[in-house]
Amino acid sequence: MRHLALAASAAVLAFAASSAQAEEGMWTFDNFPIARANQTLGTSIDQGFLDRVRLSSVKFGGCSAGLVSDAGLVMTNNHCVATCVANLSTQAVNYAETGFTPKTREEELKCPGGSAEILTDITDVTERMHKAGEGLSGAAFTRARDAEAGRIEQEACGDAADKRCQVVSLYRGGQFKLYTYRKYSDVRLAWAPEDRAATFGGDLDNFSFPRFAIDAAFIRLYENGAPAATPTHFRWNADKPVEGAPVFVSGSPGATQRLLTMDQLASIRDVVLPMDQLIASELRGRLIRYSQEGERQAFEAMDPIVGLENTYKRGLGRMRALTDPSFIQMKAAAEIDFMQKYAAANPGQGPDPWGELEALQPTLRELYPAYALLEGGTGIGTTPVAGGSQLFLWARTLVRGAQEREKASAERLPEFADSRLAATRTALFAERPVYPALDQVRMEWWLSKTREWLTVDDPRVRTLLGNESPEGLSARLVEGTTLADPAVRRALWEGGLAAIQASDDPLIQYLLKIQEPTRAVRTEWEEKVQGPTDRASEALAAARFAAYGDSVYPDATGTLRLTYGQIEGTDVPGQRWGPFTTFGGLWERATGAQPFVVAPKLLAAKDRIPADTVLNMAVSSDTIGGSSGSPVVTPQGDIVGANFDSTVLTQRNAYGYDRNVNRSVIVTTGAVTAALRDVYGMDGLLAELGVR
Amino acid sequence: MRHLALAASAAVLAFAASSAQAEEGMWTFDNFPIARANQTLGTSIDQGFLDRVRLSSVKFGGCSAGLVSDAGLVMTNNHCVATCVANLSTQAVNYAETGFTPKTREEELKCPGGSAEILTDITDVTERMHKAGEGLSGAAFTRARDAEAGRIEQEACGDAADKRCQVVSLYRGGQFKLYTYRKYSDVRLAWAPEDRAATFGGDLDNFSFPRFAIDAAFIRLYENGAPAATPTHFRWNADKPVEGAPVFVSGSPGATQRLLTMDQLASIRDVVLPMDQLIASELRGRLIRYSQEGERQAFEAMDPIVGLENTYKRGLGRMRALTDPSFIQMKAAAEIDFMQKYAAANPGQGPDPWGELEALQPTLRELYPAYALLEGGTGIGTTPVAGGSQLFLWARTLVRGAQEREKASAERLPEFADSRLAATRTALFAERPVYPALDQVRMEWWLSKTREWLTVDDPRVRTLLGNESPEGLSARLVEGTTLADPAVRRALWEGGLAAIQASDDPLIQYLLKIQEPTRAVRTEWEEKVQGPTDRASEALAAARFAAYGDSVYPDATGTLRLTYGQIEGTDVPGQRWGPFTTFGGLWERATGAQPFVVAPKLLAAKDRIPADTVLNMAVSSDTIGGSSGSPVVTPQGDIVGANFDSTVLTQRNAYGYDRNVNRSVIVTTGAVTAALRDVYGMDGLLAELGVR
Repeated sequence: MRHLALAASAAVLAFAASSAQAEEGMWTFDNFPIARANQTLGTSIDQGFLDRVRLSSVKFGGCSAGLVSDAGLVMTNNHCVATCVANLSTQAVNYAETGFTPKTREEELKCPGGSAEILTDITDVTERMHKAGEGLSGAAFTRARDAEAGRIEQEACGDAADKRCQVVSLYRGGQFKLYTYRKYSDVRLAWAPEDRAATFGGDLDNFSFPRFAIDAAFIRLYENGAPAATPTHFRWNADKPVEGAPVFVSGSPGATQRLLTMDQLASIRDVVLPMDQLIASELRGRLIRYSQEGERQAFEAMDPIVGLENTYKRGLGRMRALTDPSFIQMKAAAEIDFMQKYAAANPGQGPDPWGELEALQPTLRELYPAYALLEGGTGIGTTPVAGGSQLFLWARTLVRGAQEREKASAERLPEFADSRLAATRTALFAERPVYPALDQVRMEWWLSKTREWLTVDDPRVRTLLGNESPEGLSARLVEGTTLADPAVRRALWEGGLAAIQASDDPLIQYLLKIQEPTRAVRTEWEEKVQGPTDRASEALAAARFAAYGDSVYPDATGTLRLTYGQIEGTDVPGQRWGPFTTFGGLWERATGAQPFVVAPKLLAAKDRIPADTVLNMAVSSDTIGGSSGSPVVTPQGDIVGANFDSTVLTQRNAYGYDRNVNRSVIVTTGAVTAALRDVYGMDGLLAELGVR
Repeated sequence: MRHLALAASAAVLAFAASSAQAEEGMWTFDNFPIARANQTLGTSIDQGFLDRVRLSSVKFGGCSAGLVSDAGLVMTNNHCVATCVANLSTQAVNYAETGFTPKTREEELKCPGGSAEILTDITDVTERMHKAGEGLSGAAFTRARDAEAGRIEQEACGDAADKRCQVVSLYRGGQFKLYTYRKYSDVRLAWAPEDRAATFGGDLDNFSFPRFAIDAAFIRLYENGAPAATPTHFRWNADKPVEGAPVFVSGSPGATQRLLTMDQLASIRDVVLPMDQLIASELRGRLIRYSQEGERQAFEAMDPIVGLENTYKRGLGRMRALTDPSFIQMKAAAEIDFMQKYAAANPGQGPDPWGELEALQPTLRELYPAYALLEGGTGIGTTPVAGGSQLFLWARTLVRGAQEREKASAERLPEFADSRLAATRTALFAERPVYPALDQVRMEWWLSKTREWLTVDDPRVRTLLGNESPEGLSARLVEGTTLADPAVRRALWEGGLAAIQASDDPLIQYLLKIQEPTRAVRTEWEEKVQGPTDRASEALAAARFAAYGDSVYPDATGTLRLTYGQIEGTDVPGQRWGPFTTFGGLWERATGAQPFVVAPKLLAAKDRIPADTVLNMAVSSDTIGGSSGSPVVTPQGDIVGANFDSTVLTQRNAYGYDRNVNRSVIVTTGAVTAALRDVYGMDGLLAELGVR
């Protein structure tokens, strides 16, 4: 317990935090602290409230959303439908520019590849999952558990098209739960405002407050070609919000790393975020310049730039947190408290999960660049996707999918287990536009950054490039491939490995060629980093339950959570602001230069909207990326807004909740009502929402 | 002395370093450890050797160089003349592509704005300088000392055109020396190879070894229109180098931060380098894409991209050092050793310079972004210049120069003291090409990053942008300005403040408009950061002399230093390589795709150059950026190469010397001889060098 000795001497105990602070926590619906929330907020919610909120909450891609009518109408953020809008638009008919305003349900358009889910059931499968990993280590441990998860999912959901099953690891392996979802594969766009009304202030105002953005949109769930019947839903409430009022935010926050040890956080600070952010910054530069080369390029690059800038700015906030001495002190104090409880409960020389995790860090630091660049999806960084391009990712899915489907489900890479194939196919076959020039820029960037970070003499880089340059290779692959055509992708998928091997598509051939080194990188990571980390984290989770019981909540995992708080500004020096902004504030902030130009239709409605109508508000709830679109709900179950953002300072909530600075940013139902009524004339939707 | 208690408990004393390691140190010529060097290397150099080396060493812009004939011929690196080559080239006659190969002296071309200097005298002025700062603090302290330095310089050099005087702060204010130089303002290009012969491997091979680059060039010093007489010079020695042979490297390393405390280094790790590197990475992306837009753009952006990538890669190496646990442990151990000696010598409650510096860090962290972005030249980071553009910098010099020259010399910003005006004029009046489109890209990037990092609501950003966008403003300024014309710049300079105020040049008007906020940022930095830091550093320097005597060397300051070592590869795991590369290795490394294409003329000479001719070599000397072009000298005073690079791992030498990994990379005189003789047919130069 060298750590404990060291840490205890560091005289930071003044900050010692025991368990969760008031209002802290992204709680699972089966372990929500009802009594504590009621006590903190002065409310009286009960299990029935939780059930209704859960069944009214919708997961939509990487976003959250809420049912607002009995005919499948769902409110989410405009930025959550931005890719759908981009896919439905052309340069000539550009809904991002004009807004999307169908006057009837028949005009609602299907989002390519879009699907939505409602969580219907949670079952404990911890015992089965722990048993599957018993006695194993390294990659074998990881693979055995992945296989068991796939089996559990397949047993529970089979091939049902309207269900999805997912084994969720909670508390970093402390618990495993089977989540069952009602799944909707036909999701249509029902309304989106002008993009600039939703993104007023652009990247500059992103992750900040005061804020002036109508970042809302509606989608509709369909079944059998008709609007889905959804008797359980939130009641639309557009009343003027009141400071201090209690609210609940229900959504699917993507990922937090609050249960990581200080050593693990140091690796993120030193290695993970610096690399990810630096290469993202260069891509940003390339795309900004690309977007200035013409109207076509501006159109193509808009959505990718917004997404990239959002991830990048979040990463900046995280770097700031991990380099903020006072925040780090708070985290260290909490770790010391935990270590002391553990030492008191284990007076002998017990296992030392902190030491195990510390010992893994040099390997993690060494292997991270190759893993992040060649495989992506590390879960701890902000790396843009491996391959850099949509075409590349499709090709990888086709090649790996064909190779993996030759094996039994339990032996495949987990994303190709039988239980996951339906989602894979949906994404692969979606009718989405591809912009080859843009894809080439991204693939060239990816090849060039991979070569730079791994070095030109790395054998994997040699396989990746051969004697070609990133410029030449990416141009050759993008020009030669026909994967932009969904029919081609479908035929290759259905043709299996024989079709893949016989294909003369250069991108397919390329992906075949690089399978060996890229798969090896993934295996090495699982063997030397992921597997051992998971095992040690599981031990830490057991220790945490022993020390704190269920008064701790699990890290966010992209699954449904409930968080609570109140409508509130901040009183932190340098960050003082009240909880509300108004349309009047929007008109004042407009300079006439982008990104501070008011969208034309919105501007035209200026005189119809009372200037004191609340536009956005801040709440103290604990949210993170993925919480976007989360319904904000009163204790009575009324929806009063959609969460769409937080602040740069709040990005520290990836690693720990800081009550002083943590604020989520909400677009109010009042603002949405005004937009529907006074700007976009969406009378049908207003009637459906019960607005008089 | 809280620090000491804390640090001593950290159990890192195993690494404790006392004073300089063998071969460590960028020593001043007036405090070179002759005995120690002779003992370490088995040589017998003496004061005469030092004097000859000093008088044969040349400072050329930000680079180093060495005299190699009695007619002013000087060898440096090709990358040190790259800007000169770019300034002399057009897209049609592009010497970077063809090499510059004058057959007679008459064909040698003057480098616009180029000047070179030889250090002739060193005088101690510590007492005067310390006296000037007595009793003062903050900005007053900084300004009083700047003024005294200007006075000393002016007294010593007056307006002599062939001399330059410079008061140099050594040991972070521990000593002040007056350096007097013989100055040459007419420097001509005498030979440059094809740029690709000098930069083979491009950014990928930069800061690495093995290396295959003829990064050498010749310039010639002129006086009164004729080659300067330089009887003292190095003897050209192109013999095959021998592993283990002792060498001395004489040059002007730019800046190190080895005397900084751990708290100061943490600020660089957490705040300075992350910001600088992230914004540089975005500029890199913008410029890469710009360079792909056409041949003109590729031509314009080549030199800026190379410079940017060089600084950026150096920054990466520095980030790696500051996040390397073992390197940080080594630095911490050295600090503990120093603290313990200090505590032993000061048993009472003496002043605590470490504590003072620690207390300054929150302010430094807060003020750094504005200072770096609006003023630049922080000396601790890697920020590209404020304003982002050449035109902007000229305008700033004109506006500030006019404003400052209204005051007495001692009251001006130090760069406009009488003693510095000659250099300012030379740079300002130089006939250099300007590429407006490129300048606009850079200015737009700078405005946009400044707005992003300081936030859109910062009053200084409001002044900077008004209601304009970075795109619109930069385009308006670049299109409207006539400062690209040197005659315009000269007229505005000579017209003084009246001419500036009457000018309708939009860039001049813009610089006038932003003087108040940018000057305020600088004053605040001097008041709250620079001044107090200088004072505490001076106390630390006194403590260091007390603890270690003159066995310590000062941080690099862009002034002449001598370092010693031997020809040697490395035996570090993952970094094992011998000391030499050959032309044969070059042919093997060529893939046919850029940047691994052999330059055409060089390739055509393949059969004429023996494959085992040594091309580059590694030495263990202690160098850093600014050491580029440094003559590598035998104990007999022969020149055997020019330092041109080091490795990424070596970048830690900004913060501390690490004998295991520190290697400088040298282009050998043998390789240069082969290039002159077998590739470029420079018979005149060969004869001048005495090559048979």
